[in-house]
Amino acid sequence: MAFTPEDYKHMKKALRLAAKGTGFVSPNPLVGCVIVSDDGTEIGSGYHERFGKAHAEINALNAVREPDALRGATLYVTLEPCSHTGKTPPCAATLKELPLARVVIALRDPNPKVDGSGIRMLQEAGIQVDTGLLEDEARKQNEFFLHYITTGKPFITLKVAQTIDGYIAAPDGSSQWITGKQARTRVHEWRAKYDAVLIGRNTALTDNPRLTVRHVDGRQPKRVVIDGPLSLPENLNLFTDQYEDRTFVITHNEKAFREKGDPMLRMLSPQNFSGQTLLLRASNGHTDLDQAITLLGRHNIASVLVEPGSDLLRAFITQKLADKIELFIAPKLLGGGTRSFIGLDIQRIEEALKLRKVSLETVGEDILVSAYF
Amino acid sequence: MAFTPEDYKHMKKALRLAAKGTGFVSPNPLVGCVIVSDDGTEIGSGYHERFGKAHAEINALNAVREPDALRGATLYVTLEPCSHTGKTPPCAATLKELPLARVVIALRDPNPKVDGSGIRMLQEAGIQVDTGLLEDEARKQNEFFLHYITTGKPFITLKVAQTIDGYIAAPDGSSQWITGKQARTRVHEWRAKYDAVLIGRNTALTDNPRLTVRHVDGRQPKRVVIDGPLSLPENLNLFTDQYEDRTFVITHNEKAFREKGDPMLRMLSPQNFSGQTLLLRASNGHTDLDQAITLLGRHNIASVLVEPGSDLLRAFITQKLADKIELFIAPKLLGGGTRSFIGLDIQRIEEALKLRKVSLETVGEDILVSAYF
Ligand SMILES: [Zn+2]
Ligand SMILES: [Zn+2]
Repeated sequence: MAFTPEDYKHMKKALRLAAKGTGFVSPNPLVGCVIVSDDGTEIGSGYHERFGKAHAEINALNAVREPDALRGATLYVTLEPCSHTGKTPPCAATLKELPLARVVIALRDPNPKVDGSGIRMLQEAGIQVDTGLLEDEARKQNEFFLHYITTGKPFITLKVAQTIDGYIAAPDGSSQWITGKQARTRVHEWRAKYDAVLIGRNTALTDNPRLTVRHVDGRQPKRVVIDGPLSLPENLNLFTDQYEDRTFVITHNEKAFREKGDPMLRMLSPQNFSGQTLLLRASNGHTDLDQAITLLGRHNIASVLVEPGSDLLRAFITQKLADKIELFIAPKLLGGGTRSFIGLDIQRIEEALKLRKVSLETVGEDILVSAYF
Repeated sequence: MAFTPEDYKHMKKALRLAAKGTGFVSPNPLVGCVIVSDDGTEIGSGYHERFGKAHAEINALNAVREPDALRGATLYVTLEPCSHTGKTPPCAATLKELPLARVVIALRDPNPKVDGSGIRMLQEAGIQVDTGLLEDEARKQNEFFLHYITTGKPFITLKVAQTIDGYIAAPDGSSQWITGKQARTRVHEWRAKYDAVLIGRNTALTDNPRLTVRHVDGRQPKRVVIDGPLSLPENLNLFTDQYEDRTFVITHNEKAFREKGDPMLRMLSPQNFSGQTLLLRASNGHTDLDQAITLLGRHNIASVLVEPGSDLLRAFITQKLADKIELFIAPKLLGGGTRSFIGLDIQRIEEALKLRKVSLETVGEDILVSAYF
């Protein structure tokens, strides 16, 4: 199938529309849809706007003013139309009743419940189906969903900000403002995009962060703090601010956990804390990270931005639990201080952990290296 | 003065021509020249090809076939024509005798011997002179020369290759092939461009490098090794290969120096070594780096690529003797080993040494950060 420049144009628009659902549709995929009449006029478009609400195809159809225009029309959609009944009726069943000539799909749905059955349903109704247009872009756009639907675990991204010589804090311990304002803004954009932001106990104690979206408009993420002993002060921002019901505490201290409340029934501090406390088994005295992220997946968290200190960073890397890294590099030299990456158990240069699909960007005064593990 | 698109086109060509002299004209500047007749036809071009040989303007004039075409012509030159008699007669004196209508100059010559006098000589002869076309490009192209002519010291660039987490060697000491083939090729391109390559005693002992241009075609640089005690083995490549006469040894050990030979008269190893040994005063038991580079400047070395180990890197940075850094970052993690930058005497994050004019490039699999101190 050779796609035309018109095909590309419409699918690009569908991808742009899909992106507008970012932060609001998870753990569903981002999907956009554009409908074009047989004379090449766009007659409707839409996207999946919010989890549990109408799918992109239905929103696009609802935007069509003249139903007659659907005769011989082409529908562009960034993901294979669903064929199973979920929170809404299957889109493929709706589409196959329409007088469409052609459906163009960027990416087949890897969801085992779909996997080609939506395409077959359309083909059996006599509609021409072409797949693979801008597939790489569609795959990249839904990388969180694709990872989650195939593994059951959230997509894990590690965020690190270091100097160009690899330090995350100066010798005196100071680390504020290693990177500039635009880098911090970017972190807030990510927070609005990821389902959850995760930190370790030390960061919670030292920085008492809010982990909210402030420098940009956007949806507030869930917040996860790993507190093995379950002994963080109850007055931290994460436990007391207006978003406290979005906070998850993960502990392996069964005794403290029982004292403070049963997981789904009661809370860390019954009077105040309206988030959730999750009990996991310990692994060598630490919270089992793999179990932790699996459990977050079961709580419909499909993507996690980890903002780790040294220990948590090392744990995610050595346990091979991270999928991506967003590494800010400030163009400054410290020549000493707290190193960003330590204790990876590597002895020889040949054993170095190679990052994949590295991309570079300048963000304000800083360098952003994005790469995959 | 508003320059026309034609002006830009011709000056760009002059800059491209100038670049062809790279590596061969130092400590003179790179200069290119294009001559265009009054009907807009290019009638001659040339560049400064080699130190001591004809200047760009003369080469361009010699390329003009019909001297009559010079009547009303415009001459584009990347640097102000010289007005002093050096190894060749002053170009401005030659040009002012010609029936040129206009001379367009990218950059005024900051050489105190020139500084506007070339321009005045042309103007007094009734030729219109316009300056500043593509001046930034011309300045960048001659950054070595401009630094050298104004300070008397060579332009110093530090070359470092590290992992993304700031290590230049693994815990077991292995450091070969941190960066990939294309990065190594780039280093050879630099060696062909800088007047000299400089290393410290430890690097000479450990790696026994040749510091020659091999992966690309290009001019062999001078080679400088700092050997404070003057006790490096005489069989090192730097002292014995076909380019040994391009090797400078810098020492502060007066006793060893006297024993091994007087500077300009005799050599490190009289039978074999045909390079030069330079004696400097010691500074706290180390060779005085500032004095070393000043002396290299007096030997007509206008640019030095330093390929330092940790100690020399720290010395150049803390003594504020470096102008630029070319930092290769391999997208790999080691989590331990020899750190790239240490001992910069910085305690607080606010004191971090900020790099200026940072630019980014992907070189093969590696990241190249170029920046100024
Ligand atoms: Zn659907
Ligand atoms: Zn000249």
